[in-house]
Amino acid sequence: MKPKFYLLTFILFAGFLFSQADGYAQTKTAKYVFYFIGDGMGVNQVNGTEMYLAEKEGRIGVKPLTFAQFPYSTIATTYSVYNSVTCSAAAGTALATGVKTKNGTIGMDSLRKSPLYSIAVKAKKAGKKVGITTSVSIDHATPATFYAHQPDRNMYYEIATDLPKAGFDFYAGSGFLEPNSKTNKNAPNIYTLFKEANYTVAKGYEDFKAKKNKASKMILMQQDNTDAHSIPYAIDRKPGDLTLSQITESAISFLTKDNKNGFFVMIEGGKIDWACHSNDAATVFNEVIDMDNAVKIAYEFYKKHPNETLIVITADHETGGIALGNGKYALNLKALEYQKVSETELSERIKQLRKDKQNDVTWNDIKNLLSENLGLWSQVKLNDKQEQLLKEEYIRSFLGKDVKLAESLYSKDEPMAALAKQILNEIAMVSWASGGHSAGYIPVFAIGAGAELFHGKIENTDIPKKIAQAAKY
Amino acid sequence: MKPKFYLLTFILFAGFLFSQADGYAQTKTAKYVFYFIGDGMGVNQVNGTEMYLAEKEGRIGVKPLTFAQFPYSTIATTYSVYNSVTCSAAAGTALATGVKTKNGTIGMDSLRKSPLYSIAVKAKKAGKKVGITTSVSIDHATPATFYAHQPDRNMYYEIATDLPKAGFDFYAGSGFLEPNSKTNKNAPNIYTLFKEANYTVAKGYEDFKAKKNKASKMILMQQDNTDAHSIPYAIDRKPGDLTLSQITESAISFLTKDNKNGFFVMIEGGKIDWACHSNDAATVFNEVIDMDNAVKIAYEFYKKHPNETLIVITADHETGGIALGNGKYALNLKALEYQKVSETELSERIKQLRKDKQNDVTWNDIKNLLSENLGLWSQVKLNDKQEQLLKEEYIRSFLGKDVKLAESLYSKDEPMAALAKQILNEIAMVSWASGGHSAGYIPVFAIGAGAELFHGKIENTDIPKKIAQAAKY
Repeated sequence: MKPKFYLLTFILFAGFLFSQADGYAQTKTAKYVFYFIGDGMGVNQVNGTEMYLAEKEGRIGVKPLTFAQFPYSTIATTYSVYNSVTCSAAAGTALATGVKTKNGTIGMDSLRKSPLYSIAVKAKKAGKKVGITTSVSIDHATPATFYAHQPDRNMYYEIATDLPKAGFDFYAGSGFLEPNSKTNKNAPNIYTLFKEANYTVAKGYEDFKAKKNKASKMILMQQDNTDAHSIPYAIDRKPGDLTLSQITESAISFLTKDNKNGFFVMIEGGKIDWACHSNDAATVFNEVIDMDNAVKIAYEFYKKHPNETLIVITADHETGGIALGNGKYALNLKALEYQKVSETELSERIKQLRKDKQNDVTWNDIKNLLSENLGLWSQVKLNDKQEQLLKEEYIRSFLGKDVKLAESLYSKDEPMAALAKQILNEIAMVSWASGGHSAGYIPVFAIGAGAELFHGKIENTDIPKKIAQAAKY
Repeated sequence: MKPKFYLLTFILFAGFLFSQADGYAQTKTAKYVFYFIGDGMGVNQVNGTEMYLAEKEGRIGVKPLTFAQFPYSTIATTYSVYNSVTCSAAAGTALATGVKTKNGTIGMDSLRKSPLYSIAVKAKKAGKKVGITTSVSIDHATPATFYAHQPDRNMYYEIATDLPKAGFDFYAGSGFLEPNSKTNKNAPNIYTLFKEANYTVAKGYEDFKAKKNKASKMILMQQDNTDAHSIPYAIDRKPGDLTLSQITESAISFLTKDNKNGFFVMIEGGKIDWACHSNDAATVFNEVIDMDNAVKIAYEFYKKHPNETLIVITADHETGGIALGNGKYALNLKALEYQKVSETELSERIKQLRKDKQNDVTWNDIKNLLSENLGLWSQVKLNDKQEQLLKEEYIRSFLGKDVKLAESLYSKDEPMAALAKQILNEIAMVSWASGGHSAGYIPVFAIGAGAELFHGKIENTDIPKKIAQAAKY
């Protein structure tokens, strides 16, 4: 069998030479690179979102996302060196550096001895301005793999100290998880380090706009008194919240300022993964749509510079093992359109209800809350068994002895929120294998200069290599 | 938002013109077309097979299938006109004719009024020899959509009567399900119709070889006294069984005989779907490998005629909602390598054991049987809970009052076989959403003349259109 594969390799290589020989790949260089990573966005998170959008319009089929219409698309594997199922750190390292590593590792080899340098470093060396952005914290695994080199993804302080060392031009996300060292009291606060390295810190979109002209390097994060872990889910968004679209606009605006050499920007839709971990389908689809809105901004840029811009959309791994179907020849994704908040926010509202009612919550209160926030009863019919399950949970959570423990529930999700979401999955006919990652393929979509390099099934490590080839880094 | 999409369409069209202008797409015509359809083979059935092959070698990663290395690959949607989740009839019609229809319909529009003509009909009109082949019955949904026009996939007799009307050159599969009309006693037997239309019927590979030179048109099926529904699963295969590789070889040999005009052949790996319906992972992976072995034969042909051959591999839909993972950062697909028979065959062996032991089956007998056929205990360790579950099923199935009912079990699967398979899935960390179809993406892989047309996410209906374009039908 081996000789056949050698022949196949030869044919592929010959094909590559041919494609080079006809001058096509050489005529365009990706001066501007957008590298979108939908954390946890397996192939069927994309398909599910497009089918959800169609069903919302009352029809069967797909309503295309912008990025899923890009002219090149393929699938890629995600396994890491020692694990068939990767974590975001190893997957991020693969997508950033082109080298697979050990789960948990940030920008280092699988022995956790040598640093691995990312395509962002290559871009910087090639004279490009560089931005690394995300909807979660800037020290989180995926963005970190582009600028940091640490043996453990949980070393948030150390990761943050690598940020000014990389010296990229623009970073953005919700914030930082460990501004001070946990182990060394004398170690400097990260904001001190950022200042020493000449970074301007902007808190919120308005602050960014006020500061961007004078800043030489920028870190954009949320305003004070927000959750450092992430910006809010799209489905939970309130006016004034920082958004991935604003981050994308800010990146373009900052990286094109006084710069004729082009840029490389990584933009992570980090909370698709979080919603998948919760098996929260409506929130997942809204996060994918939200990332697509950020892609649209990149696409507008592409239209102005079509011969010099490359946009690549991919994911680090699949989360949840989502399946679009539960055995019948149907989906009912339309049932998800009445969901107004994420499971997390729903849980908060149930806790608030406990507080407001001083733990004297009635079954009617719960019905009203689930109706208002998920459309249960009002828009989405429940069968007897589903209603029975909710009522049993009501008795357990609000009438039993646990009612006294309401306070302790503040630190964890309300079981009622989890059950309601699970019933909504059942009604929508969306199945989940688990609350963890899977080895499912990830999708790759591309448009622009060098997009034609993305054909044929690839390894996740091929993606930064192809981008580097397209951009001539 | 709409204008953006018009622009995108324009850009794609401009890109197409460009690709035409550089002469690439025009220099090659697919004189020989291989159209492989893996029934039920979603994207992760392919990924799972490649990861299974790697784990069998004691390593993490993928061992590539031939077809998954083809230089072009993408993903496609499968929904039918009225169902987000398609059946094989509607999906087959989409893949055959380029038009979506109503579930259950064979080669007719969604009103079940007008016939839809397949790419095979176009190929025939263009002077090509045509073959329609499968590993299941020749009147089954997928092959039927290429030659028949019937409102219901279960009208097996009527479907078979359409076979000589289409007049293709070569058909192959396990057999036919309804040789005689159920509703009209005076209607002719299908074999009479085949003979009148000048078809030679060969029973088995040896018979085919003996008859092929003299035959002008050929139907290859299994020998007498075999199961008309399908050829055996690859994992259950015995010497002398007809195989998909033999069918592929026979198709090439017959369609190239006295023919300089080229051919179109559809080859269905029909039992990937059946194994997925059973959630029988090892059997699924072995079926995918078996179809890949058939693809290798096509690939050998391609190497002799690289500029004139197109091989396309796709699927009609995903079955089972397979997820590679159960929440941990690991798979244990290696545990599946000791499985020697399908769940169906395992069930038969348990029934045989009942017979041999005159219903006096001991727990040790069951342990030995599961050890021999699945590697349980001997190669694959069970935890206490798993062993307990099997023992409880043993008591129910073999010691309870049901033991008297052993005879009636001959018509259905043994619960012990189903449970053992389910436990093996758990150990291998393979999850399934259901025993039915899902709306998951299907993969598309292509090599050869016109393969470059397969880029960007597509609809299943685009696939025959692109083949027709590549072959200039």
